[in-house]
Amino acid sequence: MAKDITPRSEDYSQWYNDIVKKADLAEHSAVRGCMVIKPYGYAIWEKMQRILDDMFKETGHMNAYFPLFIPKSYLSKEANHVEGFAKECAVVTHYRLKADKEEGVIVDPEAKLEEELIVRPTSETVIWNTYKNWIKSYRDLPLLVNQWANVVRWEMRTRLFLRTAEFLWQEGHTAHATKQEAVEETEKMLDVYADFAESYMSMPVIKGVKTESERFAGAVDTYCIESLMQDGKALQAGTSHFLGQNFAKAFDVKFLTKENQQELVWGTSWGVSTRLMGALIMAHSDDDGLVLPPKLAPIQVVIVPIYKGEEQLQKIETYISPLKKELKEKGITVKLDDRDTLRPGFKFAEWELKGVPVRIAIGQRDLENQQLEVARRDTKEKQSVSMQNAGEVISKLLDDIQKNIFEKANSFREEKTTEVNSWDEFKEILENKGGFVIAHWDGTVETEEKIKEETKATIRCIPLNNKEESGKCILTGKPSKQRVVFAKAY
Amino acid sequence: MAKDITPRSEDYSQWYNDIVKKADLAEHSAVRGCMVIKPYGYAIWEKMQRILDDMFKETGHMNAYFPLFIPKSYLSKEANHVEGFAKECAVVTHYRLKADKEEGVIVDPEAKLEEELIVRPTSETVIWNTYKNWIKSYRDLPLLVNQWANVVRWEMRTRLFLRTAEFLWQEGHTAHATKQEAVEETEKMLDVYADFAESYMSMPVIKGVKTESERFAGAVDTYCIESLMQDGKALQAGTSHFLGQNFAKAFDVKFLTKENQQELVWGTSWGVSTRLMGALIMAHSDDDGLVLPPKLAPIQVVIVPIYKGEEQLQKIETYISPLKKELKEKGITVKLDDRDTLRPGFKFAEWELKGVPVRIAIGQRDLENQQLEVARRDTKEKQSVSMQNAGEVISKLLDDIQKNIFEKANSFREEKTTEVNSWDEFKEILENKGGFVIAHWDGTVETEEKIKEETKATIRCIPLNNKEESGKCILTGKPSKQRVVFAKAY
Repeated sequence: MAKDITPRSEDYSQWYNDIVKKADLAEHSAVRGCMVIKPYGYAIWEKMQRILDDMFKETGHMNAYFPLFIPKSYLSKEANHVEGFAKECAVVTHYRLKADKEEGVIVDPEAKLEEELIVRPTSETVIWNTYKNWIKSYRDLPLLVNQWANVVRWEMRTRLFLRTAEFLWQEGHTAHATKQEAVEETEKMLDVYADFAESYMSMPVIKGVKTESERFAGAVDTYCIESLMQDGKALQAGTSHFLGQNFAKAFDVKFLTKENQQELVWGTSWGVSTRLMGALIMAHSDDDGLVLPPKLAPIQVVIVPIYKGEEQLQKIETYISPLKKELKEKGITVKLDDRDTLRPGFKFAEWELKGVPVRIAIGQRDLENQQLEVARRDTKEKQSVSMQNAGEVISKLLDDIQKNIFEKANSFREEKTTEVNSWDEFKEILENKGGFVIAHWDGTVETEEKIKEETKATIRCIPLNNKEESGKCILTGKPSKQRVVFAKAY
Repeated sequence: MAKDITPRSEDYSQWYNDIVKKADLAEHSAVRGCMVIKPYGYAIWEKMQRILDDMFKETGHMNAYFPLFIPKSYLSKEANHVEGFAKECAVVTHYRLKADKEEGVIVDPEAKLEEELIVRPTSETVIWNTYKNWIKSYRDLPLLVNQWANVVRWEMRTRLFLRTAEFLWQEGHTAHATKQEAVEETEKMLDVYADFAESYMSMPVIKGVKTESERFAGAVDTYCIESLMQDGKALQAGTSHFLGQNFAKAFDVKFLTKENQQELVWGTSWGVSTRLMGALIMAHSDDDGLVLPPKLAPIQVVIVPIYKGEEQLQKIETYISPLKKELKEKGITVKLDDRDTLRPGFKFAEWELKGVPVRIAIGQRDLENQQLEVARRDTKEKQSVSMQNAGEVISKLLDDIQKNIFEKANSFREEKTTEVNSWDEFKEILENKGGFVIAHWDGTVETEEKIKEETKATIRCIPLNNKEESGKCILTGKPSKQRVVFAKAY
């Protein structure tokens, strides 16, 4: 059963594209850099959204919605912010088309906007401009708001899910009375992201802080979670920014303290995007297709009947019906694949390709023996299970798969994490082994830049709760107080 | 307790604005025509979304996501479609800003797009261009897809929720092998909308078909649900379009039939938007604020403790705790308002303003008597309820409120629906009574136009299953086969 998936060993990048395409996750649209998220891919994203949304609400946040467009002058109010985003902005300049004899339809030159509008690349500016009116006194704080939205950053080189001009995300924007509270919020949301990545995506992450050069444009500190893909490259899976009073200053957002003083508000923002879909695919999948953690799989169990003729199919459906009911009652999503135009082998391959965690096959002999064949997607192991305790076995199997793929990714990461102490070793590991390289760095932007130029590796993060350890910078030999995490990255 | 809401009788339009603003539902943003949906307003929209989404999935649809931008040439492919939307398009012409000594940041003239991109006003064109690749044979049909998204139509005169340049909506786009199946889908989704409006929004609607001049640009038939607001004006609450083969033709979408023939695909599209929020507000609210149907209320029951000092509050909290638990187990959302800076009267007024269906007040005497005071928002009636059966009483009360506000809106609509048989009567009713006016029309666009010019009334719809009844057009006296529904409209 040829699935036409390029093996990872042959061409990792093509392997990724094949899975995205053939598992029906997404495709390029006719609009440069914009993707179409197909129903099966979107169903996975919806699961992520629902879980994250519950976690945000659990931690006291409410959703709201702010405009798609940002006046050009707003974007410019925070100097670092505009510098970070100016080069990749979609700009709306007109608000009308009109008929034209030669060209059919043209932009109406008379409908030019007085001030151009930017399609939001992120919403700090338009939100802080709104917060100015919402926040008057300490009673209005903290303000804990999240938004699910589309954003646009005009990328020249795009890859489905990983880097697209338009993407979907959530952006939390909170305002606080004190610096400490804002820092705590920044760290709390990083923890939420890390918990989501590990408990639901089965993807181990390193929590850390970005260096100055990798910081969000406008932030005082950028926290991040970093994960490792199967090709040994790192992927930033989520960021949480401590904004200090930068946006409060830019938009003049002050509050009256209990002591009757006017003070600037402290801010945070944090986001994850459809990029997580790319991370999920690359963290677990294999040469047969997608491997999904059960908690994010739109279909958790697929049942493939093996039969000849309508009568045999009917018998299988009757036979399987109580199990289907039992699984549904356990909150497990089950699909019976009763398409009569396809052979079982084809169906097996298709559901493997789509990453369904558990596949049940039932033939005539299984009916006679009161059993069924249960196959798990992650290890490809099959077992015969008696009908009597099938519900329990499958339920436990889903838990096992969730854990197993985490363990597998975790072992891989451990194996691909290397402490090095010299420049030669650093280069050698990056070149031949890849993965996370843990090394001393002298703390300067210049050294970071030079390392990037020579090796393409960047500092992914300075891990939280990093142990102090004096050493020498691998490049300059200058003194260093701690090791940081280097890697080539997406 | 002044709430500063303008009474409906004084200025209906201002009353509406006051409620939207003071109940914290939405506000104008700094971007012309775009709104900010505030957390409380967004929570209502989320409830609508969740229920509708479940209804769409129940009827076999899956969600997907298509690009925000539409190449100008795509929009032009269906002649009626572009004519309908060209006058209100936000157009992206550039993809970069750059620093400028004088102005700070300007649009980089060198980053001009070869082809302008339109911010989607609706997605038929970009979706049918995608469907071309998804549909090859009858096995790929029907294709039942929905998208939750933001769209932009550059409106000159905007009103919060009712008409904004950017709004949120869902748009279903389906493809079918036969005309009959597509018509059935169009009607099925209209039924879903009508069911949602009546069962969840408690808002009675008329189901009907639009006349040619009110049809969606590119549709063969537009079905709609029409509701009546408290000022006697009609509001179109949802539309479902039978597209025939128009978009299949424009984008060359054909499929191989079972009989091995190439045929054009049949299409539908259907949508409801944040406009429903406007309808919800205007259908039920009163001079004290919002009135929400319990099924859409983010907070269904609010508990206001009446106390002096921490000790009394503690006692009330202990007293009320089992009831809170019981209500939560029944799936009822309860909020305890324990803010200690505000007086009970202020809280009462605030929760009335926000439309919370049931308010519980508990003072020291209630503790002694093992009872509580229960007030319903819709009728303002209060009753003393014994603690013992409070859970049951409240649960039933929520059902009663849901039904009662439907009945009230329904009676209002009946009262405001008038059959007329002459032009003078028609004008008189529109002028003095408003509401739906049921009258004969000769079936021509010219007459429809003339009636609109003279009275501002439009044909809202030709009701489904309309009874045949010969008569004479109220304006021209020409023969007519059926009555249609006229009204002034939002």
